[in-house]
Amino acid sequence: MATKEIPDIIVSRLPIYLRALQRMLDHGIQSTSSQELGERVGISAAQIRKDLSQFGEFGKQGTGYYIPFLVDKLRHILHVDRLWDVAVIGMGDIGHAIARYQGFANRGFYVALLFDNDPAKIGNKVGNLVIRDMKELVSAVRTEDVKIAMLAVPAVAAQPVADKLVEAGIKSILNYAPVSLSVPAHVHLQYIDPVIGLQRMTYYLD
Amino acid sequence: MATKEIPDIIVSRLPIYLRALQRMLDHGIQSTSSQELGERVGISAAQIRKDLSQFGEFGKQGTGYYIPFLVDKLRHILHVDRLWDVAVIGMGDIGHAIARYQGFANRGFYVALLFDNDPAKIGNKVGNLVIRDMKELVSAVRTEDVKIAMLAVPAVAAQPVADKLVEAGIKSILNYAPVSLSVPAHVHLQYIDPVIGLQRMTYYLD
Repeated sequence: MATKEIPDIIVSRLPIYLRALQRMLDHGIQSTSSQELGERVGISAAQIRKDLSQFGEFGKQGTGYYIPFLVDKLRHILHVDRLWDVAVIGMGDIGHAIARYQGFANRGFYVALLFDNDPAKIGNKVGNLVIRDMKELVSAVRTEDVKIAMLAVPAVAAQPVADKLVEAGIKSILNYAPVSLSVPAHVHLQYIDPVIGLQRMTYYLD
Repeated sequence: MATKEIPDIIVSRLPIYLRALQRMLDHGIQSTSSQELGERVGISAAQIRKDLSQFGEFGKQGTGYYIPFLVDKLRHILHVDRLWDVAVIGMGDIGHAIARYQGFANRGFYVALLFDNDPAKIGNKVGNLVIRDMKELVSAVRTEDVKIAMLAVPAVAAQPVADKLVEAGIKSILNYAPVSLSVPAHVHLQYIDPVIGLQRMTYYLD
């Protein structure tokens, strides 16, 4: 979809812009400026204009951005103008929280598969979904053509499960386990690590 | 502690460097270069050198960084060379996951207080901690002098609870609820939002 190579640091800011813009829409706000958006997301107006200009001309000098248009564009750029099936591996506290999370709606993701290796959990339902046996992971992910996984297994199990996900054809892994993973270069990996957010704030505390 | 104003974007990268360096130490690696560290965290060597140079001279030309020294310095800069008590509000799936999270150890945080407003949960133990009544939130946070909270309540409850946290003297909030919060300027706020990580990866999928 992208016609030129965009630095990943720019890509990383687009979901933050999109979230802020969708929240403005939710509050009935139809237009904004790079200044106003910048204040909401804590990024400079100049940076926002520069980031968005990589993808086209989305605002008008003097009148700013029409939010429904910019939201459509960002959803298209980020490929979330469709619904991606997601597999959740590890149905402990975090896995259950993900399976029940209300924040995916209208943002491009649908939790479609749940896995665990605990016989006491396999076969149980969470919402409408049945927890499947980890042994079925590779075949089920392939059959359902799922490309995205959220990994919520204990730290010690994370790498072997990540290897299975790669084998199954998963292209993006969001890792909740407090451990770094090795995956091939064609697989994208992001971490959810609360300590990063906490340490970013303790810098300002004394 | 900081003697000059450091841009927040630089501060935001320091925990990422620290995590990577601590993992290298865990694997017995004692020294590194900005190139090697950069490959591990996906940030350019030049950026890493520039970021670290804001705080002093931590490496030697040609020999790179001595990791135990750099880890000590970063822990000091980020104020995680001490242990911060953390209050967790909302003992659903996410709250339980946080209370049991193994990833806080040696990284500066200790979960000290748990709260919920559900009579069926109040008084129950998670590990060694008793879940307290939300009604005690303000008094307990003040008495224990807790400055950091992790917010894991349903979206609709997040703003009123955040208001209580501010009233109680909390200075840093890590918000798991899928909703944006308003807090006074002196309170720091970070979000844990899995969709941001997922959308950053779908950009590269087609």
